[in-house]
Amino acid sequence: MNGAEALIQSLIANGVTTCFANPGTSEMHFVAATNAYPSLRNVLCLFEGVATGAADGYGRMSDAPAATLLHLGFGLSNGLANLHNARRSGAPVLNIVGEHASWYQGANSALSSDIQAIAAPMSDWVHVSQSAEKVASDAARAIAAAHARGGQVATLILPADTAWTDGAAVPSQRSVPLGTTGIDPDTIERAARMLAGAGRSIIIAAGQALRAGPMDQLARIAAKTGAKLATPYGVGRLERGAGRVSMPRLPALIDPARALFEGIDTIILAGTNMPSAMFAYPGKPRQMQDDTAQVLGLCEDFGATAEAIECLADAVGAGRGEVIREALREIEGPSGALTADTMLVSVAAAMPENAIIVDESISAGRNFFPLSQGAVPHDYLQLTGGALGCGIPVSLGAAIACPDRRVINMEGDGSAMYTLQGLWSQARENADVTTVIVSNRRYGILDAELKSVGVQGEVRGSARRLLSLDAPAIDWIGLAKGMGVEAKAVTTGEDLVAAITHANGRTGPFLIEAIIG
Amino acid sequence: MNGAEALIQSLIANGVTTCFANPGTSEMHFVAATNAYPSLRNVLCLFEGVATGAADGYGRMSDAPAATLLHLGFGLSNGLANLHNARRSGAPVLNIVGEHASWYQGANSALSSDIQAIAAPMSDWVHVSQSAEKVASDAARAIAAAHARGGQVATLILPADTAWTDGAAVPSQRSVPLGTTGIDPDTIERAARMLAGAGRSIIIAAGQALRAGPMDQLARIAAKTGAKLATPYGVGRLERGAGRVSMPRLPALIDPARALFEGIDTIILAGTNMPSAMFAYPGKPRQMQDDTAQVLGLCEDFGATAEAIECLADAVGAGRGEVIREALREIEGPSGALTADTMLVSVAAAMPENAIIVDESISAGRNFFPLSQGAVPHDYLQLTGGALGCGIPVSLGAAIACPDRRVINMEGDGSAMYTLQGLWSQARENADVTTVIVSNRRYGILDAELKSVGVQGEVRGSARRLLSLDAPAIDWIGLAKGMGVEAKAVTTGEDLVAAITHANGRTGPFLIEAIIG
Repeated sequence: MNGAEALIQSLIANGVTTCFANPGTSEMHFVAATNAYPSLRNVLCLFEGVATGAADGYGRMSDAPAATLLHLGFGLSNGLANLHNARRSGAPVLNIVGEHASWYQGANSALSSDIQAIAAPMSDWVHVSQSAEKVASDAARAIAAAHARGGQVATLILPADTAWTDGAAVPSQRSVPLGTTGIDPDTIERAARMLAGAGRSIIIAAGQALRAGPMDQLARIAAKTGAKLATPYGVGRLERGAGRVSMPRLPALIDPARALFEGIDTIILAGTNMPSAMFAYPGKPRQMQDDTAQVLGLCEDFGATAEAIECLADAVGAGRGEVIREALREIEGPSGALTADTMLVSVAAAMPENAIIVDESISAGRNFFPLSQGAVPHDYLQLTGGALGCGIPVSLGAAIACPDRRVINMEGDGSAMYTLQGLWSQARENADVTTVIVSNRRYGILDAELKSVGVQGEVRGSARRLLSLDAPAIDWIGLAKGMGVEAKAVTTGEDLVAAITHANGRTGPFLIEAIIG
Repeated sequence: MNGAEALIQSLIANGVTTCFANPGTSEMHFVAATNAYPSLRNVLCLFEGVATGAADGYGRMSDAPAATLLHLGFGLSNGLANLHNARRSGAPVLNIVGEHASWYQGANSALSSDIQAIAAPMSDWVHVSQSAEKVASDAARAIAAAHARGGQVATLILPADTAWTDGAAVPSQRSVPLGTTGIDPDTIERAARMLAGAGRSIIIAAGQALRAGPMDQLARIAAKTGAKLATPYGVGRLERGAGRVSMPRLPALIDPARALFEGIDTIILAGTNMPSAMFAYPGKPRQMQDDTAQVLGLCEDFGATAEAIECLADAVGAGRGEVIREALREIEGPSGALTADTMLVSVAAAMPENAIIVDESISAGRNFFPLSQGAVPHDYLQLTGGALGCGIPVSLGAAIACPDRRVINMEGDGSAMYTLQGLWSQARENADVTTVIVSNRRYGILDAELKSVGVQGEVRGSARRLLSLDAPAIDWIGLAKGMGVEAKAVTTGEDLVAAITHANGRTGPFLIEAIIG
């Protein structure tokens, strides 16, 4: 058996069943070996950012890593932006990056680059496999690293000769997961005391904390101690809607965040470090919280977050009583010419129960979160790291992870352009994704940001040309059909609700261009 | 004056007149400041790989850097692959990368990353500007670095507060170019002696050496000494066709390269290090040349290549006589159903004098180089670093650098998908680019590579699915029109020649999908 086959056997043995691949020459032995292993699903992506973004979406929804298969240093480079997002979402991701044969790495090949250096800034774990015999165990270690700390990005670099050389062995046992460093009882006690003695307190929760079970416990802790609850702005995955505990988001920007934190003296963190506002602005403060606020993280290892919340609930005596949940609220489909907000209401009105909402609608979509409170139960997945181009790939990955659920992707026209190649993979895989392109024909967020940094008055001339997408107008129907995805443009609320309902009733992908006046 | 304005003044003062931009929030002051400086042309790109690839094409054709404007670490990440290509083409490129305000960099913003670490693997020079006062001089230094050593990638990181703070100054003088480390007369003498005493010798030339003047001198040296001439396979820019010196390319793959180098005992390098074949293969040799071959580089600093060739010509007594040039050969347009080769002949037949040919046709296009020998004079720009997705952006940059010349981009359907967003910028800028998509609906190069690594027989099953682009078929007419570029599909030689001729007669971009049976 050669290293490529041993790698695939190790993937399957350790629960990796999906590979988002953009292979090149160095990965040919892997490609050749796949034929014998139908239990590994290979999804061809036509750009590496699609592969890494899909692995992010898959990881968010399945709590297990998908593999990516990337070609050399530049293939990995193209995937880095969505790995940045994956690290902020806490998704487990396993990158397999092909490299020149080990005896060729000093050669002046046009395709050579320092893959470890390229991987490092966006990986939590990087390793170069040294021989065919070690590939299987290296893969097992990489998968364990991807699972660790609540989900990490692990990058395994595979020199071509380690893949093509015979004599590889697979580990006889499934690799032992790393586990967590566990809970520190003193920290839990201290958090309980801080909440008991607090004037005003908040628990900021992310990662594992945003599933229904832990959120119930958080709600009980909040009821007992008077703490507020919130999640950082960029939400990796939140179970919300009717029947779920309400979990507000922190504001993205500093002014409303300062207002929210005013007077709060106690901040408990569950599954996140202390977040900051997205950007600094001239003359504005550096942090959201008061200087005097006490901040304590429940557990350093985010893999222990759910357990830590259980312990905290016990420590504060939160009990097992009923918690307040969102009531189902009938959301009426809007009518008339679409605005940003009626577009959002249309999505909230038309989404089916148990939908997966992927939100990369940026400026136009800010109000979806409050507007969809009390909608049917759904999972909400947001752009987490600010690297545009997550929505189409994350939707692909989420649909493959959850084949019995519909994905609805609210996608800005600016952000969609970064990874539009993902539509082709959605078509090829017949993925159940409804994409709603929020077509405002500009980088709406930047119009606002120009004002935030102090630029007053009408944006014009060269500056306007750098923020507008209207000349030429992007024809999303042409682009979608070019990628093999059926599509329709709408301009009214009625038509948007009808189009989403139609799309959700089909199998496979569908794209709707929602043109906003 | 704030730092952003000082930066723009410094760019203009130092000859940077074009900026390929994909700005975000951190770059808003730069965007705002552009209005006052119409002599800086800002080209909006909807993906950062388009910006860096366009800067590569611009640099290849103008020998001066364009700027890119990129947003934070992930924006730079998206541009790395085409920076890899730019480094292999020797193009000067200046990246300006926005960063959080300096006092915000320790904050846990969702958008934070280590920009210097991301820049390092694909940059020859990296610097973080420390204050508004220093921005202008830092930019001047960065531009000097981009010009150095025959063309480099220089990355200037600009914390937002250095852009927005007032009190910046522009250097009163234009910055002094770095110049070259010059020529070592002993090395030139040694090269001359080696060529005089050689059994069989070759001069491998790249960069500056591939312009008409230095190539005339190389031809005289070759005639005097009996040396062969060749350029490495991935050509950054080569002036060729009728009236130019013939300059063969080295083979990309090891077997034909070994055959070419057999018996060669002397290798002189002009503007390149000793190249290697693209890939290693099981059981095949590591290098192209014989172990006993002597290798000598004419100059370490590739910025001195043209001068070093002059010196070598003097040292060998090459004289100033006539050189043998390519004769013009009438190329007849083909007829009937398109094959890969008749597609290439069609381009060679239809291209106008002084055309800029950008070749990212990969597997299908291998024969363009010999087929177009003796065609009308043209510049030939190839994928240099193997990072797919250079063709559409390089064409954009070349068209902007040379507004009175037609660019013809031969582009594989697989490679085109990586940066298809560049078509939109071609439309917006009305760039004179004719794109010929070589539509074979598969990664043709990988079919061949699968055999090279030892996989025999018909490619089927999962492996075939990972190499084919036919389900769904990509509709390039839809994609082009979606991006605002007119397009037409053709299936015969006659129609392709007619379509290229029609496209070349227009102003602005046009795309032709050449469907190969």
